[in-house]
Amino acid sequence: MVQVRYQDIAVWVKTQIDQRVWQAGERIPSVREMSRLQHVSPMTVMRAYEQLEADGWVEARPRAGYFVRPHYNQLSSDSLARPQADSHWLQAHQDVFDVISASKSGSCFPFGSAFPDPTLFPMQALGRAMARVLRQSSHPDYLTMLPPGDEGLRRMIAQRYLRQGIKVAMDEIIITNGAIEALSLSLAALTQPGDKVIIEAPAFYGVLQTLERLQLEPVPVPVDPETGVNINALEAALSTHHVAACWLMSNFHNPTGASIPEKDRPALVSLLARHQVPLIEDDVYGELFFSESRPMPLKCYDSQGLVLHCGSFSKQLAPGFRVGWVAAGCYATQIEKRQYVSSLSVGAPNQLAIAHYLQQGGYDAHLRRLRTALLQRKHAVRDSLRRILPTSASITDPQGGYFLWVTLNNGMDTRQLFRELLPYGITLAPGALFATDDRFNDSFRLNFSISAPETVDADAPASVDSGLTQIATVLSSLSIADTVTAK
Amino acid sequence: MVQVRYQDIAVWVKTQIDQRVWQAGERIPSVREMSRLQHVSPMTVMRAYEQLEADGWVEARPRAGYFVRPHYNQLSSDSLARPQADSHWLQAHQDVFDVISASKSGSCFPFGSAFPDPTLFPMQALGRAMARVLRQSSHPDYLTMLPPGDEGLRRMIAQRYLRQGIKVAMDEIIITNGAIEALSLSLAALTQPGDKVIIEAPAFYGVLQTLERLQLEPVPVPVDPETGVNINALEAALSTHHVAACWLMSNFHNPTGASIPEKDRPALVSLLARHQVPLIEDDVYGELFFSESRPMPLKCYDSQGLVLHCGSFSKQLAPGFRVGWVAAGCYATQIEKRQYVSSLSVGAPNQLAIAHYLQQGGYDAHLRRLRTALLQRKHAVRDSLRRILPTSASITDPQGGYFLWVTLNNGMDTRQLFRELLPYGITLAPGALFATDDRFNDSFRLNFSISAPETVDADAPASVDSGLTQIATVLSSLSIADTVTAK
Repeated sequence: MVQVRYQDIAVWVKTQIDQRVWQAGERIPSVREMSRLQHVSPMTVMRAYEQLEADGWVEARPRAGYFVRPHYNQLSSDSLARPQADSHWLQAHQDVFDVISASKSGSCFPFGSAFPDPTLFPMQALGRAMARVLRQSSHPDYLTMLPPGDEGLRRMIAQRYLRQGIKVAMDEIIITNGAIEALSLSLAALTQPGDKVIIEAPAFYGVLQTLERLQLEPVPVPVDPETGVNINALEAALSTHHVAACWLMSNFHNPTGASIPEKDRPALVSLLARHQVPLIEDDVYGELFFSESRPMPLKCYDSQGLVLHCGSFSKQLAPGFRVGWVAAGCYATQIEKRQYVSSLSVGAPNQLAIAHYLQQGGYDAHLRRLRTALLQRKHAVRDSLRRILPTSASITDPQGGYFLWVTLNNGMDTRQLFRELLPYGITLAPGALFATDDRFNDSFRLNFSISAPETVDADAPASVDSGLTQIATVLSSLSIADTVTAK
Repeated sequence: MVQVRYQDIAVWVKTQIDQRVWQAGERIPSVREMSRLQHVSPMTVMRAYEQLEADGWVEARPRAGYFVRPHYNQLSSDSLARPQADSHWLQAHQDVFDVISASKSGSCFPFGSAFPDPTLFPMQALGRAMARVLRQSSHPDYLTMLPPGDEGLRRMIAQRYLRQGIKVAMDEIIITNGAIEALSLSLAALTQPGDKVIIEAPAFYGVLQTLERLQLEPVPVPVDPETGVNINALEAALSTHHVAACWLMSNFHNPTGASIPEKDRPALVSLLARHQVPLIEDDVYGELFFSESRPMPLKCYDSQGLVLHCGSFSKQLAPGFRVGWVAAGCYATQIEKRQYVSSLSVGAPNQLAIAHYLQQGGYDAHLRRLRTALLQRKHAVRDSLRRILPTSASITDPQGGYFLWVTLNNGMDTRQLFRELLPYGITLAPGALFATDDRFNDSFRLNFSISAPETVDADAPASVDSGLTQIATVLSSLSIADTVTAK
């Protein structure tokens, strides 16, 4: 074995502190422990620790050990080298991760976020439900959590379908790790690499990424920002291409907020059934309607079991719990088996806590409050934008959900706007994220549910209105720069 | 619209009760609600409900509504028709699901289960940790839970690596939905459909299923029930085949319990590195060692970032929480991005609760108690089996984990044994599950951690010993039948 010198030990400990494995105030391993770990004499470790102390990285506390000193712990993880490898896929959508990373920094105004405002949810009640189910289970009942998932939760979901008048058998419901897993398992079950899949244009960027991961070819069909997917274009695509599946959002589409008119829904389902093309219906925003009643999903017009209806509690009840589902029609068994080898199951406490919350009642009252709050915020944000954006810009007026889709109509690439806004602590979701070509480059998606910055930071705007004003200011300066360059 | 008759409503409600969407004692929708849902007059619904009452399916309670009567709720879900579809994959491994389904029934002695005995875990302490983190977070901090996962939890995992003397950067750790997701994302990141992958023979059936799902070709390398994968055979496979990855269990292999001798580990890692073949190291049982100290994972001999070390808290701390991880070397970024579109992330409360538990201390004391319990149970079960099985049978003596691998050496297909034992409320994992050919058909895996049946049932054996005796009895009757048939 190579002789380890005390300098090596010192360098190694410094690296660990740099990488925040040992944080300020934490005790590093004792001299004896380190000696054993590194197969060196205690004397060598002692010399290394003295060196670290002399360099100001740690401090010795009598009879307690060596502790990491605060000021060496200020490095952010972004400044650190990180193993990199070939990322042949998703290169085109690096931007998505930039938006997410920027939103994660926690000191920004995340208008670009896909998540609803975290203050809108009954986290205390959910916490009590979780504590209760964990207290009640003397030992974990994890076998009953395996696919298709907890029977009690599946029953509550089936009851909600029934109360809306939709006939969904409990046995076709599979609990998933959020809607993302429901969608991803559904698409994987329906396709082989190389297959064509009808998607929307623009589409939720997760759709594009999932198709890329599964090596599927997208057949984009245009979405009207009000009435959703264009049915004539859909019919043309079905006649032209042999497609394995179709993936649509029926209600409050991400990113445009569009909803397919109820009167067009039966025809759409029949059209797909005529071509025997299964439909993945992404309906994660369906409960967030502003009208009188929940719009009927496409699933309710399906008589052949060809519609896979994907839902989630993440957008309207329990963000971060990662509990979604798919009502998978005749594909239930296939999806259930795939889940065994992709994630095995959803966490037992998560499933039980949500089932318990739903059983107790209060969910509908929460949903009513949530919808009211979202509608108020939509009006406020939309009015402000109308006032401060150029009149040439169009802004959607969605009847549910929490996204506005703004199209500048001036040929600007909103990725530039995104980059210019980052130093002000503001994010947006540039239109380029939502397609494989550049036709939505002068649009952006804005999350109107956000009420305040995540943490108070000198750089971030103090209120929604000052954030929106900042967007208009930067936009205006970019437009002037464009005009000057054009001259 | 077609006229809905009251009989249709009645039949529909009966179906829902049959499928246990409405359970005994639950209230079905009120007449007014059902009238609205089904677009029929209240009078029609009233007639339907009266019919249901006359048929004994529901009972009217004055001023409360209609309630499901108990005795129509005895149907098990298995007796119900369920949408079926082509399941072109996994057909060969239907047996796996049979074993899991049998274990799920809850009234059996699950010697065939892959899960440790549920009574061995600190569920109360974990419940308190979960309640605490949910109380502390006034609103959900779900953005910080996104891949690569909660920083606090990743730090605790990195510290455990360090304390074992393994240099793993915090930034290469990605939190996953159990080890299954870690393994599945790793394999997907390393391969393309059609690629060859080295696996063990016998192999954990999840390996075979994952390869099938990703359309990969297995290159099986024999595993010695004591010393694990045969390194000469591995070298031969690497020279003969162009493989994209290698997937091995270094410690307490499932199903054999084998461990690769520590002295052979550096050479194994060098061999793979020489061929530039990345290694997926499945190390979910590593903490369950019976010797003095935890065996060093292969990862610790990796200087090139080619080893993806997969771990989990499911086997030794928190079953059902679905929290695992991969220390992914130079593939960390790729895996992180894939997770965004397969499950998005692991539940926030799950990650935070485990981080909190680890931070509090007590984990190592729990692990010591768990290892002691498992070792005692191994001795007891092994001694019993030795006494009651034919002397021709071989039984492994694993130095960790909770599986015994029994080989009958009599040419019997243990799937028959499995089927014959089911009526006695006993499961086993037949050898056929662990390979794509029939060479392990006369072996079975036995989970020795199980101390009692899940629920008391007249059919299930009352104790471990009576369960084992039942196995020997059935085995003996099958052998006699074989002999008679041979005559």
